[in-house]
Amino acid sequence: MLKINRTSVFLCISFIVVLTTVCSCSKNKSVESSSNIDILYLKDYGAIADDGIDDVRAIKKALMDCKSDGAKKLVFEKGQYDFFPTFAEERYGFISNNDEGLKRIAFDLKEINDLTIDGQGARLMFHGFISPFVLEGSQNIKFENFSIDYSRTFHSESIILGYDADGMDVEIREGFPFKIHRGTLLFTDGQKQKGELTTVSKSVTYGSSHMLEFDTEKRETAYMVKDFYFSDINGFPAKELGGRKVRIRVPGLTGTIGNTMVFGPNHRKHPGFVLSDSRNIDFFNVTIYHAGGVGILGQRSHNISVDECMVTPSNGRMISTTADATHFVNCTGKIALTNNLFENQKDDATNIHGIYVQVIEKSADDKVIVQLKHRQQHGFDFIKPGMELELVRGKSMITYDTVIVKHVNRINKEVTEVTFDKNLPANLEIGDAIAEIRDYPEILIANNIVRNNRARGMLLNCRGKTVVENNTFHSPGAAILFEGDSFFWFEQGGVRDCVIRNNKFENCLYGVWGKAIIDVKAGVRENKEISRYNRNILIENNTFKIYDDLTLLNAYCVDGLIWRNNSVKKTDAYPETGKSYEPFVVNYCDNVEIDDRNDR
Amino acid sequence: MLKINRTSVFLCISFIVVLTTVCSCSKNKSVESSSNIDILYLKDYGAIADDGIDDVRAIKKALMDCKSDGAKKLVFEKGQYDFFPTFAEERYGFISNNDEGLKRIAFDLKEINDLTIDGQGARLMFHGFISPFVLEGSQNIKFENFSIDYSRTFHSESIILGYDADGMDVEIREGFPFKIHRGTLLFTDGQKQKGELTTVSKSVTYGSSHMLEFDTEKRETAYMVKDFYFSDINGFPAKELGGRKVRIRVPGLTGTIGNTMVFGPNHRKHPGFVLSDSRNIDFFNVTIYHAGGVGILGQRSHNISVDECMVTPSNGRMISTTADATHFVNCTGKIALTNNLFENQKDDATNIHGIYVQVIEKSADDKVIVQLKHRQQHGFDFIKPGMELELVRGKSMITYDTVIVKHVNRINKEVTEVTFDKNLPANLEIGDAIAEIRDYPEILIANNIVRNNRARGMLLNCRGKTVVENNTFHSPGAAILFEGDSFFWFEQGGVRDCVIRNNKFENCLYGVWGKAIIDVKAGVRENKEISRYNRNILIENNTFKIYDDLTLLNAYCVDGLIWRNNSVKKTDAYPETGKSYEPFVVNYCDNVEIDDRNDR
Repeated sequence: MLKINRTSVFLCISFIVVLTTVCSCSKNKSVESSSNIDILYLKDYGAIADDGIDDVRAIKKALMDCKSDGAKKLVFEKGQYDFFPTFAEERYGFISNNDEGLKRIAFDLKEINDLTIDGQGARLMFHGFISPFVLEGSQNIKFENFSIDYSRTFHSESIILGYDADGMDVEIREGFPFKIHRGTLLFTDGQKQKGELTTVSKSVTYGSSHMLEFDTEKRETAYMVKDFYFSDINGFPAKELGGRKVRIRVPGLTGTIGNTMVFGPNHRKHPGFVLSDSRNIDFFNVTIYHAGGVGILGQRSHNISVDECMVTPSNGRMISTTADATHFVNCTGKIALTNNLFENQKDDATNIHGIYVQVIEKSADDKVIVQLKHRQQHGFDFIKPGMELELVRGKSMITYDTVIVKHVNRINKEVTEVTFDKNLPANLEIGDAIAEIRDYPEILIANNIVRNNRARGMLLNCRGKTVVENNTFHSPGAAILFEGDSFFWFEQGGVRDCVIRNNKFENCLYGVWGKAIIDVKAGVRENKEISRYNRNILIENNTFKIYDDLTLLNAYCVDGLIWRNNSVKKTDAYPETGKSYEPFVVNYCDNVEIDDRNDR
Repeated sequence: MLKINRTSVFLCISFIVVLTTVCSCSKNKSVESSSNIDILYLKDYGAIADDGIDDVRAIKKALMDCKSDGAKKLVFEKGQYDFFPTFAEERYGFISNNDEGLKRIAFDLKEINDLTIDGQGARLMFHGFISPFVLEGSQNIKFENFSIDYSRTFHSESIILGYDADGMDVEIREGFPFKIHRGTLLFTDGQKQKGELTTVSKSVTYGSSHMLEFDTEKRETAYMVKDFYFSDINGFPAKELGGRKVRIRVPGLTGTIGNTMVFGPNHRKHPGFVLSDSRNIDFFNVTIYHAGGVGILGQRSHNISVDECMVTPSNGRMISTTADATHFVNCTGKIALTNNLFENQKDDATNIHGIYVQVIEKSADDKVIVQLKHRQQHGFDFIKPGMELELVRGKSMITYDTVIVKHVNRINKEVTEVTFDKNLPANLEIGDAIAEIRDYPEILIANNIVRNNRARGMLLNCRGKTVVENNTFHSPGAAILFEGDSFFWFEQGGVRDCVIRNNKFENCLYGVWGKAIIDVKAGVRENKEISRYNRNILIENNTFKIYDDLTLLNAYCVDGLIWRNNSVKKTDAYPETGKSYEPFVVNYCDNVEIDDRNDR
């Protein structure tokens, strides 16, 4: 069993003492000089903690005043605040690696600058299909001292009762309402269907299209289980067995009796915090108990820090966020993840990468039509006039030229025509990938605990200086993954200077998501002999606890890798896999030095 | 069996002879004086009939030139043109009685005026999730001499093989691709799933959540069958039986072996023609073989005529459009439906109505917050400054006052705050309904054939002079329905001057959608003694063929209704229902005169 003391995470939690004197914080502000207001108090807008009343309109007014008065801080009182969709702002959002759509937004921080939202320990409770925080074109925003959660999660949980070739019996846990309607299990908000079922049906369903088994005792993905993916469904074929017991009529499901079968949502509509085209965004002592997508998603943003935060489930739930804890796309400046706990989220702890578009047509000597291929990248309009882009051969992933953008004609969320400042090179091919050459962010990932989530720990796909140190990983897949491809995920990666030191890798790879604890991959499908996608990786002074002779390092198409002064200890935390692995797998690499003298 | 000669509909089809001489129609138009161009030919934009190549970009260029050059006509050649979503325009659309969403649009007619699109007999074939025609703020547009269809329909069809208490066996008809994935029947585009199933899954499903049985021989809804509605699903619990045979694992399904079970789509995303905030729109000799929603949808538009058109299935399919043939919401001026055939659509032939919002909060003496309640009315922002609105008591449907709008603050697609020019009456109640008092359109519905569709014929819910004459109805439900309520559909109705004469009602009411052939209903739930929602209805010189002693007329809360000189003939077209009906059911009415001397 893994034992990590959680209290260390709390050491630095301290409630901010408000020192500034405020002339007046009453709701009636017409008599005040706007320049005098540094702090606004949410209670002055009618938002009373723990009264159960929707606080969306209070927040909206307060944020409007913050903007108009140039207030520096918005302060909550301790207790619970509630947010419902009815009166919320609404905007269409394209959010990378999450789902686009017209969203209700509780905290709409569009074009707001120089503001700290200090929760003073408040718990922000969201009800229904609503996005907690959305930033667009904002600067110098700090979030501190609060938590976010949902009264009804977007996923659902059950206990496995048994299975056979035709299906599985489960008992749906309390707190996850459901119904069986005409042979289909649908998760609901617990409200009864009103009136007859027609096109005006008022029922709300929490659509699900994915199942994954968790170990109820260990509170982590069960040993070596696989995802059960379903295409494009909202509920599962099923039959009532009485009470909260249900037979899922899906052939081939397996699991361990007593384990927790998690029903993942069929969308990522409501990530916790969306930071779009923003700068200098800091999180301190924020807890994300749940989100309907990624916890913190930064896109095309500059300087983001997440410090002393937690992604962790509430109320005895198995799952925290339904996707990655954090995720950063085409960001710049610095990204720092320090002193955080990331646990039980339904995907990786972080992924920091760029996006490739694919060339689908050369429409003139100086023009191409490019397409965003991954549906959760649609609408990610990163190409701007004046920008330098790299031209990358689709199969080899070799950058063969760079070009400067002159003009951009967006055709729709998938397809854009780009005109360059000169003719394109003659060797441009349909199927080539194009990505932004930017001020790749400097990455610091330090003193974090990552555990018990689905899949991997950290995905390092960034060309800025990347330091990963003093973290503890207990990941079912690779603890650290490098990738990047232009045929499936279309994520631009390729580190140039990456240090992984003083980390503890505690019994990782107890699941199916990876072949090595540190897995340096790349989507190179041609010219492997010369393509070197990741470069200059130093792995030193780390401790690996392994329950079997697993692969510590896989390196593919790497130029420059040093492995030294790492220690490896064997445990019996899990059954042996029964397979035989090489500790180091190195293919198509240059300049790899592996010194395993201290390893065992 | 119903026998209506379909050839009559074709009598007036004639191809327009182009008389105007055009100086040049080449694609290179820079040398031309824009004032000389009256007609543009699509072939000059690279759209070649029958070549199977996507014509979306050609149309887009041609429409841009129509706009910039002020061309009066865009002309096709005979043959098939193809339209795919890849390069199509994209816009978020709120379309009443259909589904909102970000849509790809083939013919984007936003703010285009004075244009005739003459198909010269062309067949426009749409592929995938794309909307054929969208007009917004356009004037004087004429569509003539073409058809629209989809290569893969949004619904699917099967033949019933048998059933028992647990489910039904069907054989999916050719032309409706499907797969069974992990116990769920999903309709597809016939393309194979590429790569592994993840969040980047490339499969396309044609979601379905509704089943309805059609008589394969008679090509109409089977005698007295009911809709099977499913809440919020995309596919059906099912098991493969080999070949195209499938067992639908849904308890309670029944049907007749050999009949056609139609799987209705779970959306109305792609109506054929959407006319929003437009004026003077004419359809002549246009055939709609299929649409993913209503065939022609007019909202907040003025003067619409549909003449010599057809809504009818192609390729031996049972179903034409997946919802109403036509539908008009908050329109003004004149609406004329003349000489059309509306058959096999999956809902009514037309519905002409307004929309009620509901008062959910009185936010000041002169302000209310109102909500659009029906989800397919969300975003229907009809309230504008200066507009006169009626205040309607929610349960009695009695209009008790009128008010003038001063200011509108849209909060989101559902909720709007409205400020009036003076304080609201003291008797305003939460739950009251509000609708626009407008230049209600004059309606002419003449010489149409309506048959074999789901549900009703014509829904008459308009206060302008309404004439329905010389039509032939063979509707499974009410041939003519009047309604209007503020608790379920939130559709404003209430005729003031309606004439129904010289129509043939041929063996209507062979299904479950209505209690009378002419059904005058209203959502009056209080003060029935005094509430008179529909007024002044004259029903004369009509012929009713009935297969049983059915209710000819149901009248509820009507003031002023005359029934005279109608004839009724008994047939044996269907089995008798076994129930006993009154020919005239009149409740809570004033001034009703029924002269049935000629009836039998």
